[in-house]
Amino acid sequence: MMRTRPLKVALLGCGVVGSEVARIMTTTADDLAARIGAPVELAGIAVRRAGRPRPGVPEHLLTTDAEALAGRDDIDVVIEVVGGIEPSKSLILKAFGNGASVVSANKALLAKDGAELHAAAAAAGADLYYEAAVAGAIPLLRPLRESLAGDKVNRVLGIVNGTTNFILDKMDSTGAGYSEALEEATALGYAEADPTADVEGFDAAAKAAILAGIAFHTKVTAADVYREGITEVTAADIASAKQMGCVVKLLAICERSADGGSVTARVHPAMIPLSHPLASVREAYNAVFVEAEAAGRLMFYGPGAGGSPTASAVLGDLVAVCRNKVNGTTGPGDSVYAQLPAKPMDEVVTRYHVSLDVDDRAGVLAQVASVFAEHGVSIDTVRQQGRDGDAALVVVTHRATDAALSATVDKLRALDSVRDVASIMRVEGE
Amino acid sequence: MMRTRPLKVALLGCGVVGSEVARIMTTTADDLAARIGAPVELAGIAVRRAGRPRPGVPEHLLTTDAEALAGRDDIDVVIEVVGGIEPSKSLILKAFGNGASVVSANKALLAKDGAELHAAAAAAGADLYYEAAVAGAIPLLRPLRESLAGDKVNRVLGIVNGTTNFILDKMDSTGAGYSEALEEATALGYAEADPTADVEGFDAAAKAAILAGIAFHTKVTAADVYREGITEVTAADIASAKQMGCVVKLLAICERSADGGSVTARVHPAMIPLSHPLASVREAYNAVFVEAEAAGRLMFYGPGAGGSPTASAVLGDLVAVCRNKVNGTTGPGDSVYAQLPAKPMDEVVTRYHVSLDVDDRAGVLAQVASVFAEHGVSIDTVRQQGRDGDAALVVVTHRATDAALSATVDKLRALDSVRDVASIMRVEGE
Repeated sequence: MMRTRPLKVALLGCGVVGSEVARIMTTTADDLAARIGAPVELAGIAVRRAGRPRPGVPEHLLTTDAEALAGRDDIDVVIEVVGGIEPSKSLILKAFGNGASVVSANKALLAKDGAELHAAAAAAGADLYYEAAVAGAIPLLRPLRESLAGDKVNRVLGIVNGTTNFILDKMDSTGAGYSEALEEATALGYAEADPTADVEGFDAAAKAAILAGIAFHTKVTAADVYREGITEVTAADIASAKQMGCVVKLLAICERSADGGSVTARVHPAMIPLSHPLASVREAYNAVFVEAEAAGRLMFYGPGAGGSPTASAVLGDLVAVCRNKVNGTTGPGDSVYAQLPAKPMDEVVTRYHVSLDVDDRAGVLAQVASVFAEHGVSIDTVRQQGRDGDAALVVVTHRATDAALSATVDKLRALDSVRDVASIMRVEGE
Repeated sequence: MMRTRPLKVALLGCGVVGSEVARIMTTTADDLAARIGAPVELAGIAVRRAGRPRPGVPEHLLTTDAEALAGRDDIDVVIEVVGGIEPSKSLILKAFGNGASVVSANKALLAKDGAELHAAAAAAGADLYYEAAVAGAIPLLRPLRESLAGDKVNRVLGIVNGTTNFILDKMDSTGAGYSEALEEATALGYAEADPTADVEGFDAAAKAAILAGIAFHTKVTAADVYREGITEVTAADIASAKQMGCVVKLLAICERSADGGSVTARVHPAMIPLSHPLASVREAYNAVFVEAEAAGRLMFYGPGAGGSPTASAVLGDLVAVCRNKVNGTTGPGDSVYAQLPAKPMDEVVTRYHVSLDVDDRAGVLAQVASVFAEHGVSIDTVRQQGRDGDAALVVVTHRATDAALSATVDKLRALDSVRDVASIMRVEGE
């Protein structure tokens, strides 16, 4: 039996995602009602500027007063697709103040102030859901939080930024350099006019923080995430990866330490073997690889961005929080009981691909090798290629801490025979 | 604040999956309690035969009286990992009779009597969860039911049986015939002594019924699923698929009709292009590809069977139903409001790869082509290879109904010039 009083929804933001949310809510109202067990009604849409043409969006619902809309006491659920820290945070807190549940797609805010927002939700007896904040339409947070709730996740390895994956895939398939590939991504609408958040890894780092927190039941913020973007990745790096049977991907990597007592989260370009399922993720697609103790190796794949895919995730959350409202309950909230410290990058253990420009003379390899040995970094393979007077030396190491590798590189730079440390890239997924 | 009275769990079945469930419940009790918000206690384990060695399973909990255990009125949750229709069904109904929630891994039972069991759960105000019934550890039912609850799923295409995928992958990688590959699968423990349920597609068909029901919010039972196994797949089929840039997979395919008014569910071997994400699913892995209107194309990948992966799915459900118990609520139940009829195979539209042995003489191709034309089945490509006196003719069609293709094949068989219809295989995923 369906209750007849409709649930009222306030939509904050009506850009690419918001307008899709409004359109789908309007066109599939009957399906949503059947799945929720109550009709659901769009009660207002907050926009920055009125008067723009917004096809398919009911005009009479538009308002420029987001604060008043979020604060209306007849609102059951607030959907926040504005992005950024403020005013989104204040609007969400205002919604909780009225007992409304919140569905958000705001990765930056969740990665920064997730704990505070979850606490406000709990205090209000309301839900805070944000599947859309990580990897667009790919169901990921709910599987991690609920499906794997009886398992122990040890590692999450993901391609969670479509822009950078598009650029790196282009570089890989065409041999183009970074700037050229970025230009193409911009022309095709895969990169924004200011691509900083994507190419410098800020977007992926926010997602890594959210993933690590949920996967390990502990508090991780964006500030805990080591971050390197893709702007320094060269065509030579990509070519060198190919020679090793690898591709270069910008990875978000969340790991539980071997002793289980701490976690690390990091975002950086890395070489992964072609045989790894993540290696075949092309163009702007996202995919996340999860290793759990009992479940084994799982992968989730799909479109990581775009209006419709992100709207799908928002609406899935909307159905869930509305169902909870109807049933007078809330879903699983913040789970941070494990209280594991987030360790810095220094303690991360992985393999490294180091490219050096060195003098092409006898004894240089021995000198370089001894620097690695001094720092306890064991060498897996060395490839040397002579050029006119100098040589390119590529060293791939066995597993070592980032601290040991950094110390090694500092010492290498100081060697007379080493003209340049051309690149350092981590090797993952083996 | 955690409640202190523990939730009591009865475990029915202590085979490969059950013993893993018992082991993980015992070793991770603190984590489970933190995630549920209440301690959880294994109150009894029903086994068929007592006295067997069961390492890691608390012996004092064992009983051979499953009925008494399922009927104990202090039990909050019953986990059923016995399998088969009876006594599992009666035991589950008994549990609901006491208001207990049920977590099951029983695909055969859910695909046959899912509606009846869901009704019993609803009447009892209890939960019925069964993530483990489809694709082992891969979170699939929860994402379909909850994450995509605000979207419209149009198609589910899955490799949901590890045994047959192992056999077909072996045939593909080694050129072995079916019997030889089956032997290897049996020797390695991937196939059971009696492999009928796997190789004839019964297991996959049960999963297809469950997937179709959840994806399309309608009632689908195993009897609605068209089913063909892999026992007729030959090394020649695999080789022919390779020539087309395809691999052969046993697929479970659930589709909404183009007009949205009906659904079909089917399990059969099919050729899919190497570029399709499902093509690279090797060995006994499972993967399910979902096409939704807003989300686009998603894929879920992981181990589809085995004690630990299946236990992971069971325990994820256990945490969910226990949380619901603590909160005095239930999760989303059966959603069959759409009431779409399940149409028979005749109305399925797809492409076909038809291999014929024909006389090697002028006019035969024209004769064959005109039979296809008569039935409105348009030909995409033809490949003819002469042998001593006869010829192998391979026809790949454009999209046509199964009924039209069947009529075409009947007519072809009646032609004097056609010695044999060597094989018919559907082509999917394009």
